[in-house]
Amino acid sequence: MLSATPLEGLPEVTAGLDLGQAITTALARWPVPERPRPGDVLVVAHKVVSKAEGATRRLSAVRPSARAVELAAGVRDPRVVQVALDESRTVVRAVPGVIVCETHQGFVCANAGVDQSNVPGEDLVLMLPSDPDASARRIRARIRELAGVAPGVVISDSFGRAWRTGQVDVAIGLAGVAALDDWRGRTDKDGRELHATVIAVADLLAATADLARRKDAAQPVVLIRGAGEYVTEDDGPGVRPLLRERAQDLFR
Amino acid sequence: MLSATPLEGLPEVTAGLDLGQAITTALARWPVPERPRPGDVLVVAHKVVSKAEGATRRLSAVRPSARAVELAAGVRDPRVVQVALDESRTVVRAVPGVIVCETHQGFVCANAGVDQSNVPGEDLVLMLPSDPDASARRIRARIRELAGVAPGVVISDSFGRAWRTGQVDVAIGLAGVAALDDWRGRTDKDGRELHATVIAVADLLAATADLARRKDAAQPVVLIRGAGEYVTEDDGPGVRPLLRERAQDLFR
Repeated sequence: MLSATPLEGLPEVTAGLDLGQAITTALARWPVPERPRPGDVLVVAHKVVSKAEGATRRLSAVRPSARAVELAAGVRDPRVVQVALDESRTVVRAVPGVIVCETHQGFVCANAGVDQSNVPGEDLVLMLPSDPDASARRIRARIRELAGVAPGVVISDSFGRAWRTGQVDVAIGLAGVAALDDWRGRTDKDGRELHATVIAVADLLAATADLARRKDAAQPVVLIRGAGEYVTEDDGPGVRPLLRERAQDLFR
Repeated sequence: MLSATPLEGLPEVTAGLDLGQAITTALARWPVPERPRPGDVLVVAHKVVSKAEGATRRLSAVRPSARAVELAAGVRDPRVVQVALDESRTVVRAVPGVIVCETHQGFVCANAGVDQSNVPGEDLVLMLPSDPDASARRIRARIRELAGVAPGVVISDSFGRAWRTGQVDVAIGLAGVAALDDWRGRTDKDGRELHATVIAVADLLAATADLARRKDAAQPVVLIRGAGEYVTEDDGPGVRPLLRERAQDLFR
């Protein structure tokens, strides 16, 4: 059985908060038999990571470029568009109201992951952590140090999809969790090569956490149990294996 | 807490099998307190639905068109490509080895969902169910009839993504489960409109089941508990709300 349980009782997250310590403290309130054990995975919504790391900007200090004004197309705040441009390597598509960017971290997503919700003070926007794999490694190391156990850590964000409506959470940072489960060359019970040749397990972990969490109840951290086969002792290569190489990209 | 438990002991699925009955029988072996209750969701891999419905074709009876031979590009079986073309409204992208199609059901996916794995006899390929919402409704109705409880039913398949490697399971058929959880207009705890405005909950259910299932152990059905807020008494509109309208599609 797989289970996913949101953490209660995390403090309000502000810049400089030691997230690994805050998570360890919240987990220490669980009954002893339920406390983290090897093979557990913690999925952390990037929003609290970005806040703790101070990955925010004040809109009042942003001067939108001509390009930002053009892309805002009269329907968006050009300053928010400017922040998205600053966070991006390239703009993949733009129509009035929607900008799909490739971020400096290599993610292709709407608005370069920049958003205004859940941020105290209307003047602030929140960016993605500058290096989400490093964020995941720091959180993991701190929990290992304080609790003596090192769960896998996934940093998640909500992404749209090209041909489906709605958003799903995906992994944007990883430590001690496999990005992919590669079945190529492995066979099914009849000896035939398996259909789902490469499974994006880190994205499945992010999606499972998103389903478990109540969006209106401040539950940014979810513990997943029963997926220990994807947890590794070392921190591993992070999310890079999940990013499609440009040469394999059919949709730009 | 959210939980996801694969069903054990389903029979080998062949054309004509009453899947709703087979699932009910497998569930009846669970200890009484664990048996299905209102609010549960069953996620069923389309492969067993397609097999039960006979959504298969014999390659030996397929005559590939000139276009199929061209798209096969010497690296794929042109007969499999022909079946994919027969299952499609349009080809969205094609390069040697990869064809992304829009299926008659409206899904944009590789090879129109046609695959050869897990099919007894090398000559057979498996298609998607012709109307996966109807498949989900039939399974749900049969379980309601036999077990007196009507779990939500999700039919799933593994899809690739434009900008991320690996596959994740998504919903291709629904009965009694919301496709989307629409938070537009609803606010977070500080009164700010929520970032993740529309959540593709049916796809999260499919992803959670995929994480819970062992790919090599014939576990096509997974019961998810703790997501009852998305289960509805009536069968609802199916997957249609998850399909992006052509006018909103930036990536063709």
